[in-house]
Amino acid sequence: MLFKVEMDVNVPQDIDPTVFERTKAKEKKYAEDLQASGKWRHLWRIVGQYKNISVFDVESSEELHNILMGLPLYPYMDVRIEALCRHPSSVRADDS
Amino acid sequence: MLFKVEMDVNVPQDIDPTVFERTKAKEKKYAEDLQASGKWRHLWRIVGQYKNISVFDVESSEELHNILMGLPLYPYMDVRIEALCRHPSSVRADDS
Amino acid sequence: MLFKVEMDVNVPQDIDPTVFERTKAKEKKYAEDLQASGKWRHLWRIVGQYKNISVFDVESSEELHNILMGLPLYPYMDVRIEALCRHPSSVRADDS
Amino acid sequence: MLFKVEMDVNVPQDIDPTVFERTKAKEKKYAEDLQASGKWRHLWRIVGQYKNISVFDVESSEELHNILMGLPLYPYMDVRIEALCRHPSSVRADDS
Amino acid sequence: MLFKVEMDVNVPQDIDPTVFERTKAKEKKYAEDLQASGKWRHLWRIVGQYKNISVFDVESSEELHNILMGLPLYPYMDVRIEALCRHPSSVRADDS
Amino acid sequence: MLFKVEMDVNVPQDIDPTVFERTKAKEKKYAEDLQASGKWRHLWRIVGQYKNISVFDVESSEELHNILMGLPLYPYMDVRIEALCRHPSSVRADDS
Amino acid sequence: MLFKVEMDVNVPQDIDPTVFERTKAKEKKYAEDLQASGKWRHLWRIVGQYKNISVFDVESSEELHNILMGLPLYPYMDVRIEALCRHPSSVRADDS
Amino acid sequence: MLFKVEMDVNVPQDIDPTVFERTKAKEKKYAEDLQASGKWRHLWRIVGQYKNISVFDVESSEELHNILMGLPLYPYMDVRIEALCRHPSSVRADDS
Amino acid sequence: MLFKVEMDVNVPQDIDPTVFERTKAKEKKYAEDLQASGKWRHLWRIVGQYKNISVFDVESSEELHNILMGLPLYPYMDVRIEALCRHPSSVRADDS
Amino acid sequence: MLFKVEMDVNVPQDIDPTVFERTKAKEKKYAEDLQASGKWRHLWRIVGQYKNISVFDVESSEELHNILMGLPLYPYMDVRIEALCRHPSSVRADDS
Repeated sequence: MLFKVEMDVNVPQDIDPTVFERTKAKEKKYAEDLQASGKWRHLWRIVGQYKNISVFDVESSEELHNILMGLPLYPYMDVRIEALCRHPSSVRADDS
Repeated sequence: MLFKVEMDVNVPQDIDPTVFERTKAKEKKYAEDLQASGKWRHLWRIVGQYKNISVFDVESSEELHNILMGLPLYPYMDVRIEALCRHPSSVRADDS
Repeated sequence: MLFKVEMDVNVPQDIDPTVFERTKAKEKKYAEDLQASGKWRHLWRIVGQYKNISVFDVESSEELHNILMGLPLYPYMDVRIEALCRHPSSVRADDS
Repeated sequence: MLFKVEMDVNVPQDIDPTVFERTKAKEKKYAEDLQASGKWRHLWRIVGQYKNISVFDVESSEELHNILMGLPLYPYMDVRIEALCRHPSSVRADDS
Repeated sequence: MLFKVEMDVNVPQDIDPTVFERTKAKEKKYAEDLQASGKWRHLWRIVGQYKNISVFDVESSEELHNILMGLPLYPYMDVRIEALCRHPSSVRADDS
Repeated sequence: MLFKVEMDVNVPQDIDPTVFERTKAKEKKYAEDLQASGKWRHLWRIVGQYKNISVFDVESSEELHNILMGLPLYPYMDVRIEALCRHPSSVRADDS
Repeated sequence: MLFKVEMDVNVPQDIDPTVFERTKAKEKKYAEDLQASGKWRHLWRIVGQYKNISVFDVESSEELHNILMGLPLYPYMDVRIEALCRHPSSVRADDS
Repeated sequence: MLFKVEMDVNVPQDIDPTVFERTKAKEKKYAEDLQASGKWRHLWRIVGQYKNISVFDVESSEELHNILMGLPLYPYMDVRIEALCRHPSSVRADDS
Repeated sequence: MLFKVEMDVNVPQDIDPTVFERTKAKEKKYAEDLQASGKWRHLWRIVGQYKNISVFDVESSEELHNILMGLPLYPYMDVRIEALCRHPSSVRADDS
Repeated sequence: MLFKVEMDVNVPQDIDPTVFERTKAKEKKYAEDLQASGKWRHLWRIVGQYKNISVFDVESSEELHNILMGLPLYPYMDVRIEALCRHPSSVRADDS
């Protein structure tokens, strides 16, 4: 089951740079593992913004919730979610 | 070069159903051809809405403009566009 | 899997009243059947508005999409959807 | 009398974690007691958000006001309220 | 139980003036009767706008719903509702 | 001359509670005096919110300005103002 | 007593040009008379828009209401109103 | 050449009152000088708000920019600007 | 004096195609003449939209107003305007 | 390939003025170098605002992303981006 998730990261100006770099490294590892498992199917950066757009492929919305809550950068994020389904004009067998 | 495009279709209540069905059939063919060519890389329906979210892979923004202007349903659409680029945490070599 | 759906009905001023009454009767039947089947778990009217708030319990977001697209009043509706999950403070075993 | 209440919790970045955990524990107890009494009829988490959607069943809007003002997390909340009533298509005898 | 209701009237440009005058006359009678009964406690016009702000005193939100749905001008209205309660600094014994 | 005023109070999280309690006490006294004088004609709390809706009866908009600027909680307030006048359907002789 | 009024004129595409020219001529006469009387103190056009910004000097908000309701173009207008008062840094004795 | 400028002043809660009073005094002097020179043609306070609405009469938009950037309170301001021109219905020879 | 102007063209669905093509041809001629004269300094299409972004170089805001009001497509346009001035980091002597 | 970029700079009230002046000097140098290279084609200040509007001419959206991320003032900026293309009515050979 697919969900589109848009994540905007708002970094406080006064954050400790060491803490922030460590959190970003954890976030990268977390994202790579979920991509390897197939759960985090797409991950793109929006040009000129500290934002990404992602597509998740999960068993249930509960699973999506747990994945998002576990994001190391979640406390700094604004998140917008929309459920996706197969488009009648889509030709990709595995894209829905 | 990737662009995310969100298309909302607003069908006027008083549209001639024959005309509309014919236009939708043309739209389907147009979308399938562009998917086959690799230009229209992803196409998902947003659940419960007459909206899609798409990812296009084009040579230039001019090419994207021409593709969108050629959509048979374009006169009924609201379109929002954002340029995408590779995310530093992405593990997919081909960015999709 | 639970989804909250808010439906706003916008009736055009110049609608044929006979057609509209017939469509509303179909909508009522459709809603009652889905409530009986357990898919449409809650249905409340918002006070003073031609709007409802509903909770659906479906197997997948695809199923939700098909249910909503089948609503006889769908062409007159604005629809907003949010996926729900169990709240850690909820005491109801069956989540409703 | 039913009211839908949406609560968004905005936790300040610099909150003392001990104080916050204690407040969340109080909030959980408060919510469980009100659910047990039947006043807080439904409580769902919105997926991927620190937000809930709730339905309260109260004697008066004054009672709702007092319940909400007593929420231990109220100082961190944005709250949106709508009065609900029975929907003419509802089939649940006790859901209005 | 008090509710503040704001009503914006949007008259279509092409309305039949005879029908509209008759509807406005019915609306006036309806408002006067509800004021006489004490249900429609306050009714003010917003300066320079085809809008009013009203305070209703009803037994339940269901009663408010029925009153609003019965407004002869309701099909042309946008309505916003907020539940009110006694303010701790209010000195008027009967104003809550 | 009547004005509707909506006041939203935004209390900073880090306010000194003693100072805030003292300011609230001053606000209460200020509101009671203006109600006694007839200038602050109505004062209601919006349910579940730290907001009120008020109706002022003043000689001039200058007088309203001075009253609002003198509110002890004014520095923490968002204020929205609309001029009111008699509604043609109002039956209350003294309500405009 | 001064009020700032912003008026946006939305002309329907299908308006009868003869009727519209006649209404605009009436509006011009109405505006000129009120300027001559001193009630309509300032009238400026916003560059590139079918909008004006005006300052009215009236005895009461009731008088402002009646002036605005009498505007021949009122049925095509969106109107926004704010009460003005003397600014402490103003050097103009007559406030304009 | 006329420009309407709306200035909203947002005073931080924790500002040093001495610094702020000094800045306000400078602002007053600055506004009085520009009014005396005819550049700042109108200056009104919006009732109940820490906002003004002003009309400037400048040689060029560059001159307006420099005047606004020089406002002692500029760092605390939100500013909205619209170019004005003579209204065809205006009767004031010098008001455009 | 430079102004940025954004123009959104909203073509009614039921426009007579012959009339519309003729109006577009006039618009093209009008835009070309103003570009040739140097008044309409830049004209770009926004990708995927029936919108342009333009920079005008005019003697006064009155002149800009007259140019915009003369646009053959003006009745179908939404227009947003902002005055521009030289940026302190700009290296182009002629500001374009 | 052209992109319009609007940059709003939000300077925190409590920024160290020395750090800020140094950052602004770096920003100026960075902007001048990119203008010299032809990448940053236009740069205008919006009147009365700490905002600019720019046009970039880049090889790809990836290149635009890297330029923007490298802006010394980027951490204080809100950025809005739109892809541009040649307008059919444009007469400038090199402006698309």
